[in-house]
Amino acid sequence: MNRSELFSIIQKKKSFLCVGLDTDINKIPKHLLDGEDPVFEFNKGIVDATHELSAAYKPNLAFYESLGVSGWKSLEKTVEYIRSKTDEIFLIADAKRGDIGNTSAMYAKTFFETFDFDAVTLAPYMGLDTVSPFLEYKNKWSVILALTSNRSAADFQYLEDKNTGDKLFESVLKTSKTWGTTDQLMYVVGATKAEALENIRKIVPDHFLLVPGVGAQGGSLKEVAKYGLNNHCGLLVNSSRGIIYASSGEDFKEQAKVKAEEMQQEMEQLIKGKGLI
Amino acid sequence: MNRSELFSIIQKKKSFLCVGLDTDINKIPKHLLDGEDPVFEFNKGIVDATHELSAAYKPNLAFYESLGVSGWKSLEKTVEYIRSKTDEIFLIADAKRGDIGNTSAMYAKTFFETFDFDAVTLAPYMGLDTVSPFLEYKNKWSVILALTSNRSAADFQYLEDKNTGDKLFESVLKTSKTWGTTDQLMYVVGATKAEALENIRKIVPDHFLLVPGVGAQGGSLKEVAKYGLNNHCGLLVNSSRGIIYASSGEDFKEQAKVKAEEMQQEMEQLIKGKGLI
Repeated sequence: MNRSELFSIIQKKKSFLCVGLDTDINKIPKHLLDGEDPVFEFNKGIVDATHELSAAYKPNLAFYESLGVSGWKSLEKTVEYIRSKTDEIFLIADAKRGDIGNTSAMYAKTFFETFDFDAVTLAPYMGLDTVSPFLEYKNKWSVILALTSNRSAADFQYLEDKNTGDKLFESVLKTSKTWGTTDQLMYVVGATKAEALENIRKIVPDHFLLVPGVGAQGGSLKEVAKYGLNNHCGLLVNSSRGIIYASSGEDFKEQAKVKAEEMQQEMEQLIKGKGLI
Repeated sequence: MNRSELFSIIQKKKSFLCVGLDTDINKIPKHLLDGEDPVFEFNKGIVDATHELSAAYKPNLAFYESLGVSGWKSLEKTVEYIRSKTDEIFLIADAKRGDIGNTSAMYAKTFFETFDFDAVTLAPYMGLDTVSPFLEYKNKWSVILALTSNRSAADFQYLEDKNTGDKLFESVLKTSKTWGTTDQLMYVVGATKAEALENIRKIVPDHFLLVPGVGAQGGSLKEVAKYGLNNHCGLLVNSSRGIIYASSGEDFKEQAKVKAEEMQQEMEQLIKGKGLI
């Protein structure tokens, strides 16, 4: 999928919502636990309830890996199910991988061939070598960590470069944006730093940003949109717990839909206000 | 396993060799491909041939993930096989994970509970939050990327902090060593930068360093030992391709053993010279 196609999906659905499938077997409704594959059944329910309201899904790999082989089966089935359900979804593997050379090529193969993801989140610490094998795939995306929403992001991301004065996350943006096009690269920018988006938009005005941390982690959607929207929308805002665990009962699908609808409707107003639909 | 136990294994085996199980189904001997689980059969052969010569094994997760569910099965069987074969092995998941909060906790669970690894490699970009859930496990290790051996390591790892003058990898070492003990933390330091080890040893004199890049990537074992050995050995030197793909024929085990023995013998001289055995 390229940037225009992603923008078309957002326009059609009037939503730049990304639903984070951080599916924790200890948090899903108890009535699902008797089934053969509770994690998949839960995801299927969430997808059924929210796919018309969402532009993207983002399974967080840690939750699947923690279950070993059976978790990977659940993930495989989830990806296949989403692909069978609709063509109009952007699918992000939240894997935060970061390795080099043939290892990085293996990760690219994993997410773009073994699994049919559109995008993978990547850690920039090891530089271009981490990203380049992913860039060889046409219509696939690398989503690079820039400024994250966690407290200890400040440990290193705010270190200022002696020569340029740039903070590390700014160096990451400035350097890595030369590695590929706006059809290949996105950035993770935490919503708890909404005002930082203004500065980030000066460095990467045209890129899509994947913004976690709205809702449960405390960020405001309105603030994010104010500083982050561009003329291709340029935002995917992720919500995980606020949607998928809206209810822990048998009505989890209905309640997830209610929460997704709330976000979609707020988003519709915001992109209308910006003249994007 | 704590630092003294790891040192005892190194003393007993007279080796600080870590064999990297970067098992690529396209590179293993063809005669294995007819079997039910060629990746596992290959690893089993390598482990049988090298476990008395190695202090550690380091499966690189990318190679297993790239095969999807079947790759995770092969990994699971490999870990179980190594554990059944010997107690005297340090087992590192080369996963380079880096996430936060409950996600990071899930990764810790994956590698320390679902799989019985002793250690996991972690990327430091997101700071302490990435590492802290791993530190809650007793006798388990976080191996943090400091200075990597790839060319584009220079993209960010050498950026100099305006306030301290430290390069990013030095900041990572100085900050992260306060997060845990020398029984919990190790660092990845690429062997292609052997002379950099001298400086790194000033910052972390007592920590173990995991050193990839000897052999295929061009580093010299003698140089690494010169700058890196400390009074607990303090080094695990990884070799992957140079050992596991020493032969692509039916004699792959014998040839892997020959190559591992060469390294073990050189290591024995080096730690003898240092008075460690």
